[in-house]
Amino acid sequence: MTNFGDLRLQMDSIQFIGTVHTPLKQIGDCPLQESEGAPAGIIRIHEKYLQAMSGLTRGSKVILLTWLDKSDRDTLTTKPRNNPNAKTTGVFATRSPDRPNPIGLHEAEILSISPNGEIVVSNLEVLDGTPLIDIKPLL
Amino acid sequence: MTNFGDLRLQMDSIQFIGTVHTPLKQIGDCPLQESEGAPAGIIRIHEKYLQAMSGLTRGSKVILLTWLDKSDRDTLTTKPRNNPNAKTTGVFATRSPDRPNPIGLHEAEILSISPNGEIVVSNLEVLDGTPLIDIKPLL
Repeated sequence: MTNFGDLRLQMDSIQFIGTVHTPLKQIGDCPLQESEGAPAGIIRIHEKYLQAMSGLTRGSKVILLTWLDKSDRDTLTTKPRNNPNAKTTGVFATRSPDRPNPIGLHEAEILSISPNGEIVVSNLEVLDGTPLIDIKPLL
Repeated sequence: MTNFGDLRLQMDSIQFIGTVHTPLKQIGDCPLQESEGAPAGIIRIHEKYLQAMSGLTRGSKVILLTWLDKSDRDTLTTKPRNNPNAKTTGVFATRSPDRPNPIGLHEAEILSISPNGEIVVSNLEVLDGTPLIDIKPLL
């Protein structure tokens, strides 16, 4: 087997930098992919991280990383798009929220941004109340 | 100020699913962006997560998420691309590895994949030994 002697740390902590607010109140409200009718969303950045928003402006295209905290982190295989006839597939070959680290990846445009940490984005297919963990510019 | 009463959990744990191996042994070896001459890399997936690789094949285009464990997680603003003349910018408007959650995002193609968990990818601009935290198909 492969030698994992260099995998010094097995885990670390992830900090929530804010919270996402959307009209999606339960899993059944969520589109299967974000291109399929995801609604606009509001992000509230925690005051501790407000400085890190400097340089984000209306019209910026960003990648939002969320922490899909309702997911099952022990799931290793799944049937894509919940289709019972689909072939069972490893979660790393799917966008299933059920995976060891339930990080959601979302491209969106900033529609408005306020110095108090409220950011309105064009589309975001996550459950209301989902923690936000990062914002990166789209390259 | 914004009400954060709904930010129930402030943090969670992130699991390392494998390790990245590259020729980049120190920060100075790293290109500033991955399009600028990043070398091929080898990923070793921990045996606990081998099942989750099912469905990934040679030629698959993927997004690799790494945990840039040499980063400074207290940095909130930076000068883009280490240019001292650049305007100080919030890290959420940059791809700086120094940020509250040092997640690296990398697009790459799978060049080969082995059932023992070794994956060779086309390009990966991270330091040798960096933990891997997720693999997602590029949509």
